[in-house]
Amino acid sequence: MDSGMNEKTTAELEHLRGLIDGVDQQLLHLLRKRLDLVAQVGTVKHGAGLPIYAPQREAAMLAKRREEAKNMGIAPQLIEDILRRLMRESYLNEKDVGFKQVKKDLGSVVIVGGKGQLGGLFSQMLTLSGYQVNLLDKDDWQQADSLFADAGMVLVTVPIAITCELIREKLTQLPADCILADLTSIKTEPVKAMLEAHSGPVVGFHPMFGPDVGSLAKQVVVVCHGRSPEKYQWLLEQIAIWGARIVEAEPERHDSAMQLVQAMRHFSTFVYGLNLCKEEADIDTLLQFSSPIYRLELAMVGRLFAQSPELYADIIFAQQDSQHAIGDYLDNYREALELLKRGDRNEFIKQFQSVAKWFGDFAPQFQRESRIMLQSVNDMKTN
Amino acid sequence: MDSGMNEKTTAELEHLRGLIDGVDQQLLHLLRKRLDLVAQVGTVKHGAGLPIYAPQREAAMLAKRREEAKNMGIAPQLIEDILRRLMRESYLNEKDVGFKQVKKDLGSVVIVGGKGQLGGLFSQMLTLSGYQVNLLDKDDWQQADSLFADAGMVLVTVPIAITCELIREKLTQLPADCILADLTSIKTEPVKAMLEAHSGPVVGFHPMFGPDVGSLAKQVVVVCHGRSPEKYQWLLEQIAIWGARIVEAEPERHDSAMQLVQAMRHFSTFVYGLNLCKEEADIDTLLQFSSPIYRLELAMVGRLFAQSPELYADIIFAQQDSQHAIGDYLDNYREALELLKRGDRNEFIKQFQSVAKWFGDFAPQFQRESRIMLQSVNDMKTN
Repeated sequence: MDSGMNEKTTAELEHLRGLIDGVDQQLLHLLRKRLDLVAQVGTVKHGAGLPIYAPQREAAMLAKRREEAKNMGIAPQLIEDILRRLMRESYLNEKDVGFKQVKKDLGSVVIVGGKGQLGGLFSQMLTLSGYQVNLLDKDDWQQADSLFADAGMVLVTVPIAITCELIREKLTQLPADCILADLTSIKTEPVKAMLEAHSGPVVGFHPMFGPDVGSLAKQVVVVCHGRSPEKYQWLLEQIAIWGARIVEAEPERHDSAMQLVQAMRHFSTFVYGLNLCKEEADIDTLLQFSSPIYRLELAMVGRLFAQSPELYADIIFAQQDSQHAIGDYLDNYREALELLKRGDRNEFIKQFQSVAKWFGDFAPQFQRESRIMLQSVNDMKTN
Repeated sequence: MDSGMNEKTTAELEHLRGLIDGVDQQLLHLLRKRLDLVAQVGTVKHGAGLPIYAPQREAAMLAKRREEAKNMGIAPQLIEDILRRLMRESYLNEKDVGFKQVKKDLGSVVIVGGKGQLGGLFSQMLTLSGYQVNLLDKDDWQQADSLFADAGMVLVTVPIAITCELIREKLTQLPADCILADLTSIKTEPVKAMLEAHSGPVVGFHPMFGPDVGSLAKQVVVVCHGRSPEKYQWLLEQIAIWGARIVEAEPERHDSAMQLVQAMRHFSTFVYGLNLCKEEADIDTLLQFSSPIYRLELAMVGRLFAQSPELYADIIFAQQDSQHAIGDYLDNYREALELLKRGDRNEFIKQFQSVAKWFGDFAPQFQRESRIMLQSVNDMKTN
């Protein structure tokens, strides 16, 4: 009985696994039932024009379930994680129902650059909400005049490098009431260009997510007001109905944050990949020796290089000022390397402690958050 | 009926939410039942000394469930994610049952540095497996001789900077049959020191995870063989029973990989935090403007500073050679910054493409993996 499988062990395990299979069947039926009920909630909300994501209701429901779980000797975090995963699925399914159309008399929407990924996503969301959407791509400019003639909104989503030029040259003859909006990831220059080109309502957006999200639920959309906000208030409501959270910002403040959040971060990730390549690192070996945290970090680097080089060049080269942030990082890196070369462990620890102090309560908060993420990464391992 | 809540909407939503509550009650009961059944599987496995993590059985079970889900119109990924989360919970619960003791006649285990976090984790796992464990910390050396006298294994887990010195000075008089092992995150020097200090069985380990993992299931433990592997084969089996995967490596190859995986990565994360601090970035603002990917990256930086500066100093300063890898990164960063300053977008794209080519199939694989992770991050958002 002491080592390995024998007949009795095999039989016992088989019996228990049969029972687990039975529980899993019931689980699948329950999931089906819950998805259907939430879809019905979606239909009712759709009719009433309510947003699909209701943070307070969600928090209250989760708190109740956590309490019930605790009373049954189940870890509260377990039921919370499972329900959050289920909610994601329901958000995805919202698309099948469609969304309430906030503005009934808009006329058509023209998406300039609509055949790009982000343009495609907005085209889909607008169509699902009952709007008539026309795509205008670089080869279709001969149709532009007729499309613009009855446009209620023109949405620009072309590469950053050509955004302002395109706005200034091609979008000066829009109908007076037409809303001019863009989705560029920097905001100062595009909003300025739109205000100059068009005398009607103007608004700039920056959707803070990649085009591969399945749903806009809980995603952030930054809005920079241009002119006549009362004319596009419905659009903010529409985006909220899709589940996203609207964050208002001054274009300059947004762009300055983006130097750190986007340009510098993407740049150092690019250099990290470049460095691995030049060092001729063996990715297989690195993965073999990887802790969950390093695997996650390597995946974040690798994902960059699965995407469009032009897109990242656009983001990194977009703002002249990003060079300062990127240059500062280089200086700090060089100084820290000097510490290392001198073997000055004490100074390293001193600097570490002052950064930790600066992070304050965010450091333990980030540690808790990342622990949950790392556990998810570990869950996914298959060998 | 067109905008916002009215009485009928409220009543409909309340009714549906009541039904969802009912489904969730059933869900909780099912979870309780499944956890209990898996605990019974654990007890049977415990008796037979089988590992708690069985990759093939797990893969087969998931494939079956995915198929069943598909037939019910449920996304296969949904049931897979939920079951993986449940399996994690069951691994955590394994601890309540304890683990099979592979080696019955070992004598006691002495953990040198046993009051540290990693020492504490191994002490717990060994105790749960029926071994008698004694902790020896820096203030207990007067007891050392009596503890070593009947030790079947001495496990060293003290800061890297003092590991080799401690081994050479304090561990030269162990019983001839005693296994000498360590948990240091570099391996060449410690294994060499152990072989010199002790003539009996010697083995080096590097657990590739933080001490805050709840369970060893699916975690990686690197093993570097020292001397007389047949004498500690049982220990590798014991670690496998805890659920971990053993990866064998030459000490030099391991240490060389660690320069990239640990030293350089931690160093650049340190500089990233230092840089944010010096730029006086406003974390609240950064978070407000964060996409899920940046929030994840910021959390990975912040978590470093919630931990011990000494631990990271140890890792970064441990290997002289790490300076080369760290210095190379600096050179690559500087060159890339020159590109940016020259505005040489074409060369950036060219280099990007050659790194992408070097990543090969790993790039899209990492993109898929990270997409799943980012979705989990988004699930966790509460506002």
